[in-house]
Amino acid sequence: MKSILDYETVDYDRDLNIVKIIDQTKLPSDIQIEELTTSQQVWDAIYLLKVRGAPAIGVAAAFGLAMLACQIETTDLDEFERELISKKDFINSSRPTAVNLSWALGRIMDRYREVKNRLIKEENIDISIIKNTLLDEAYKIKEEDILVCRSIGEYGLSLLKPGDGILTHCNAGQLATCKYGTATAPIYLGHEKGYGFHVFADETRPLLQGARLTAFELSSAGVDVTLICDNMAASVMAKGKVNAVLVGCDRVAANGDTANKIGTLMTAVLAKHYNIPFYVCAPTSTIDMTAETGADIVIEQRDVKEVSHMWYKEPMTAENVKIYNPAFDVTDGSLITGFITEKGIFKSPKEM
Amino acid sequence: MKSILDYETVDYDRDLNIVKIIDQTKLPSDIQIEELTTSQQVWDAIYLLKVRGAPAIGVAAAFGLAMLACQIETTDLDEFERELISKKDFINSSRPTAVNLSWALGRIMDRYREVKNRLIKEENIDISIIKNTLLDEAYKIKEEDILVCRSIGEYGLSLLKPGDGILTHCNAGQLATCKYGTATAPIYLGHEKGYGFHVFADETRPLLQGARLTAFELSSAGVDVTLICDNMAASVMAKGKVNAVLVGCDRVAANGDTANKIGTLMTAVLAKHYNIPFYVCAPTSTIDMTAETGADIVIEQRDVKEVSHMWYKEPMTAENVKIYNPAFDVTDGSLITGFITEKGIFKSPKEM
Repeated sequence: MKSILDYETVDYDRDLNIVKIIDQTKLPSDIQIEELTTSQQVWDAIYLLKVRGAPAIGVAAAFGLAMLACQIETTDLDEFERELISKKDFINSSRPTAVNLSWALGRIMDRYREVKNRLIKEENIDISIIKNTLLDEAYKIKEEDILVCRSIGEYGLSLLKPGDGILTHCNAGQLATCKYGTATAPIYLGHEKGYGFHVFADETRPLLQGARLTAFELSSAGVDVTLICDNMAASVMAKGKVNAVLVGCDRVAANGDTANKIGTLMTAVLAKHYNIPFYVCAPTSTIDMTAETGADIVIEQRDVKEVSHMWYKEPMTAENVKIYNPAFDVTDGSLITGFITEKGIFKSPKEM
Repeated sequence: MKSILDYETVDYDRDLNIVKIIDQTKLPSDIQIEELTTSQQVWDAIYLLKVRGAPAIGVAAAFGLAMLACQIETTDLDEFERELISKKDFINSSRPTAVNLSWALGRIMDRYREVKNRLIKEENIDISIIKNTLLDEAYKIKEEDILVCRSIGEYGLSLLKPGDGILTHCNAGQLATCKYGTATAPIYLGHEKGYGFHVFADETRPLLQGARLTAFELSSAGVDVTLICDNMAASVMAKGKVNAVLVGCDRVAANGDTANKIGTLMTAVLAKHYNIPFYVCAPTSTIDMTAETGADIVIEQRDVKEVSHMWYKEPMTAENVKIYNPAFDVTDGSLITGFITEKGIFKSPKEM
């Protein structure tokens, strides 16, 4: 039987011009591959968290935009460009917080301008060349994601020792990337080497990515993982069971303030209290030097029904109760022991 | 329409010799009164959290034991006593952490010994006198609970000011007691005086007492309450929206270490980090001077299905994933700003 790790988080079928993703909202009960062919489907897939995790969102957006570019039926460059920008803006509006979304779309657009200028110079306006170039760029973003995660894994592993207890929040695993994950990369590499880590996965309310995805993928790989409710993190830390906290992130400001899944801030404050190192694992593409501090990062507010109804058989609170449902929080840079990136381990973005 | 606050959390029908409770596992969807007539029903009601909250557990156990005593059909005192002790031991085994359970049963037994000795001295062994005395004691425990909670409310209110943001965890509300609640008592009394508090209720995974009970009862009373996932507490504190944390508790050790619902420790660590006062609201009956520190408090471990399956339409994690599900954690006395009791506000049990 195939394990969840044998599936591609994000894939592209060049013959059919179709983006394929695992529909992560169905996990762990059902491994279902969803085919995306329209801009609305790409937008929905990202907004509804069928594909999620900052790096995977970037790859899905890149393939999505390249796929939509291939569908544009015109030989007129201006018309092509107008349509391309409109598709890009639409996809970019699906989620505000993860910088990888706009970063990956920006790479596709940069590549577009590059090839356009070259073709204009060569007086050879061939839209099919442009289309193929954009697809190649999307493939490159995916390949780089795998190399970057592997490298994060190697740097991260250098900070850990066999038998360590590791706590992680949300899913910064293979399902959030194309392979290895970010926060899980050191765990997977250590597991291959027989490190015998004990991993604690916060379930991560409201959408339970820790329970549904992290505990699922780590246990599929044979890693010793224990699922806990988010509010049990203090309890396992107080008992001395956690030697390091590893999390991913969605956007890092220039001063090191880091936006990641709601609850990350809680985990960082607890780690500080219990003197446990707290590492953010992220590609350098997650750093947004245009955001000076966390205050400049837009935090997505999501449907309150995620808290009151989703997953449940019946409403879990009284009608009309006010609910606060931010998808992310911002962890002060001062609470972060280090950033583990593909280029090494840094105390702050300014050192990179 | 009756509000949830118009129902008695625990009640007793003297004519029928029946204990009545609100089945809290059905809230908020369904307000259902459950009648308890056997020792197994009393045990189940406490174990299954149909009645929960340390003070309410005490009242239910007291009425339960007195009711069972009334059912003993013998005129032989020794036989009566043997049966009474056996019922008491059985009910006492339903949950280990809340001290109020054994405290209330102990009060019924103390009263039993007192009346027994008096009747022996008077040479008037009348079992019906004993039965009525035990019932009277159960009523007294319930009446005292209401007075104690009111007094906690008054002391607690002296620490708060109009417009304060108050965060609470789990349900230490009216549904955890017979009226007012412990942690909610200052909120209800302040609400009557127009204080305009803004309350944040942690949903409290896995059993969601905050969502199902606290948000429900406070909104029924017209209090401004916002439901959050447990992992959002840091976020609202970081935004300066919380001026005080009020929680109840299940057992306080002599050094001030306090066992309360899982996640309380997290809330206390966060409050310390953000310089927010953290108050434990509890009757002095919750103090267990025989427990020197928190290490002496037995923490109940509960069925892992509460985390992986309960409330959900489908399993929320992969099969065979290990799960940790302690019902409580222990908050270091050093993290507690003060204990708000019916006798006043104290820094530690040793001062009381």
